[in-house]
Amino acid sequence: MALPSPSYTVTLRVQVPASQRATSTVVGAVSDAGAAVMGVDIAHSTPDGLVVDVTCDTVDAQHGERVVAALEAIDGVHVLKWSDSTFLLHLGGKIEVRAKTPLKTRRDLSRAYTPGVARVCLAIAENPEDARRLTIKRNTVAVVTDGTAVLGLGDIGPAAALPVMEGKAALFKEFGGVDAWPVCLDTTDTEEIIRIVKAIAPVYGGVNLEDISAPRCFEIEARLRAELDIPVFHDDQHGTAIVVLAALINALKVVGKTLEDVRIVISGVGAAGTAIVRLLKAQGARHIVAFGRGGALHAGERTGDPHRDWIADNTNADGFSGSLRDGLVGADVFVGVSAGNILTGADVARMADGAIVFALANPTPEVDPLEAAETAAVVATGRSDYPNQINNVLAFPGLFRGLLDAGATEITTEMLRVAAVAIADVVAPDELNSAFVIPGVFDHRVAEAVAEAVKGASTPRQAAGR
Amino acid sequence: MALPSPSYTVTLRVQVPASQRATSTVVGAVSDAGAAVMGVDIAHSTPDGLVVDVTCDTVDAQHGERVVAALEAIDGVHVLKWSDSTFLLHLGGKIEVRAKTPLKTRRDLSRAYTPGVARVCLAIAENPEDARRLTIKRNTVAVVTDGTAVLGLGDIGPAAALPVMEGKAALFKEFGGVDAWPVCLDTTDTEEIIRIVKAIAPVYGGVNLEDISAPRCFEIEARLRAELDIPVFHDDQHGTAIVVLAALINALKVVGKTLEDVRIVISGVGAAGTAIVRLLKAQGARHIVAFGRGGALHAGERTGDPHRDWIADNTNADGFSGSLRDGLVGADVFVGVSAGNILTGADVARMADGAIVFALANPTPEVDPLEAAETAAVVATGRSDYPNQINNVLAFPGLFRGLLDAGATEITTEMLRVAAVAIADVVAPDELNSAFVIPGVFDHRVAEAVAEAVKGASTPRQAAGR
Repeated sequence: MALPSPSYTVTLRVQVPASQRATSTVVGAVSDAGAAVMGVDIAHSTPDGLVVDVTCDTVDAQHGERVVAALEAIDGVHVLKWSDSTFLLHLGGKIEVRAKTPLKTRRDLSRAYTPGVARVCLAIAENPEDARRLTIKRNTVAVVTDGTAVLGLGDIGPAAALPVMEGKAALFKEFGGVDAWPVCLDTTDTEEIIRIVKAIAPVYGGVNLEDISAPRCFEIEARLRAELDIPVFHDDQHGTAIVVLAALINALKVVGKTLEDVRIVISGVGAAGTAIVRLLKAQGARHIVAFGRGGALHAGERTGDPHRDWIADNTNADGFSGSLRDGLVGADVFVGVSAGNILTGADVARMADGAIVFALANPTPEVDPLEAAETAAVVATGRSDYPNQINNVLAFPGLFRGLLDAGATEITTEMLRVAAVAIADVVAPDELNSAFVIPGVFDHRVAEAVAEAVKGASTPRQAAGR
Repeated sequence: MALPSPSYTVTLRVQVPASQRATSTVVGAVSDAGAAVMGVDIAHSTPDGLVVDVTCDTVDAQHGERVVAALEAIDGVHVLKWSDSTFLLHLGGKIEVRAKTPLKTRRDLSRAYTPGVARVCLAIAENPEDARRLTIKRNTVAVVTDGTAVLGLGDIGPAAALPVMEGKAALFKEFGGVDAWPVCLDTTDTEEIIRIVKAIAPVYGGVNLEDISAPRCFEIEARLRAELDIPVFHDDQHGTAIVVLAALINALKVVGKTLEDVRIVISGVGAAGTAIVRLLKAQGARHIVAFGRGGALHAGERTGDPHRDWIADNTNADGFSGSLRDGLVGADVFVGVSAGNILTGADVARMADGAIVFALANPTPEVDPLEAAETAAVVATGRSDYPNQINNVLAFPGLFRGLLDAGATEITTEMLRVAAVAIADVVAPDELNSAFVIPGVFDHRVAEAVAEAVKGASTPRQAAGR
């Protein structure tokens, strides 16, 4: 059952009669309509009565209208207007560009702009590496999308994707101190996206690809990595993989098993699933079976998709053939990056003792987390309303902080791996339990730890590129 | 003769003996070396002496080294290190991205990012015009360059152009409250630049083209204007034209002549010259002769460049044929956007009484402004060290402020014209004189006046696009 949520907060401006009980009647009616009252403020008063602002969390976009109707039904009460705080917050966008240097006097202007700036331009023209020292390139990342796979919403286009990219840029700054800028491309052509990102690259010290649909995202990432001299990271793949590995490292400590020995079942062989298989193997996992819609992938199977074929050839050494349900029997770990409600508590009950279940489909997990928790030892989801939230914000800000500080020219699998280990290590031994295998998203120690680890994993040659 | 300038400020850390006169000796030596001392601060003290930081303006990039040598020649004085404050100011770049909304709690995150942001995305997907309301598009301009015509430096490439674009973005915010972002493109292909700007356009409410060489800049601007639904403005053309027209309106008041009647000579038929001709004609100028390197352009002349041909067909009604020098005889107005030192005071002396001379080549004007002022009534340059500086910063921040506020989908010549009139009108009748025909660049009334005028000139259909 859905609960009132801060993502559906509304503020209602309500006229009420001048009576002792008027306000409490309104609050009671809002609560009875299923909303959670967060605050009541008197806006102004007249001889006939009061005007109050009632802020409340509602369940969904329609719920606000039901709350209004409930208030209008009260004698003498009238809703003057109401507004949705999520939309209010988005008015005019969520990020801005600010000058870091004052421009108040001719002296300021002569240094930051003409004529002084010409010398800085010439210095970079003579020594291109100086761009990393004397421009925003040093601290700036492009958040690139074509709007084809935005959240769970699918192909909504570049303009509609912009609020997500703005939010991402805000998170980059808040958690990593990184200046990130939205690049929402009005094209879905793989070659054109590659050309554009290469052309805009002089301004940026890194590229974060975001919400680009598979399989184009693989080609775009691989080509840009090969052709650019700045690190390129597809967050939907590797961000998820890093946080999954981090949570799994700690979950295995809780159940007393080792990664090398456990049987791991992955549901979903898209962008995230592929990256998870690669990173778990890099950390030492040996027994992975991955399932697509048609069942287990096994060696020799040719699908025409090189990423699926790679999974087929590098997992499922025992050649298991069958459905996800069958494959789950006796497994130690389930990682779902696929679709909601494809498993039941009974399926989880057939896993090995001390089972670990990461049901990451959003907003509806692969299996109801409460049902899963009846038999599984550790359960994680992508949601904030259950314990153990697998959230990419634990990875990308610190990762790029480290890459930029190192002046890195590429991203290696080893950097992704040490980032995951660093996240896992933030959870102290005396904090670790089945409901806390991964740090909270507001834990600022995480980005620092990830940045340090990534910086340490960058080669001297890369660091010299600074 | 070059004077010490704040664009060449250096700070020297100097070890001096512990004597009463040590500091004054140092200051004297710096002054004797031709630098202007701006300040002396004691960094720290030891039993043997003091370490002081001397900040001084120098004449050019080599002058700092001569100052160091002069200090080292003093007994007991030693320069420990010295730094160039223009370069110090550029470390890490001049702009940053900031979140406008807090991201400190789960409540914040639920609204600015997932899951709340999904509703905002869907609203834009359903009604694309909402992007102007609910995203940064409302207040954001792309500053686009390919680095081919940067300041007077020429084709220095996109990375070396970035400091100028950052400075421009900082000026956009300081004077217009506009969020501007540098787009420095690693391509000089006209078609590719057009494709890229169209592809990145969803994020922006306007495009400011900058420092793109002619004639490609004309084609790029024209095509983008035709193919995009946001205003596109080439600052090197129209920004200059706006400020020239503004200054000319006021200069004509000073000399008591009217635009319709004066004989105007333009030197330079590149990007700026073409735009100046068009805008002066829009305001009513009837007698213009434009000169390229080969002399006066006249009707019927075919150069293969459509912009030059347009000038040839729309100026010089009397069919004057000859050199710039000859054309200047008896002229009322000279506007130079060409090259330094191509005229002398004697050439200016042959103009009509009450002559107006705008010698805008940078850094060296077409004629020495002091020589020109011996006979001309009004002299303007592009430089800040003479009166009447023609500076584009008077135009572009207010222009885009007005365009964004109007939700304009295009820029019309009428908007450029009213912007010029608004700038001219900021100079009150009791302020107007031959040394003050244009407001100073730090006069914040200018951008407000320009924004109001441009907003008023946008059509209702454009305003409805908001």
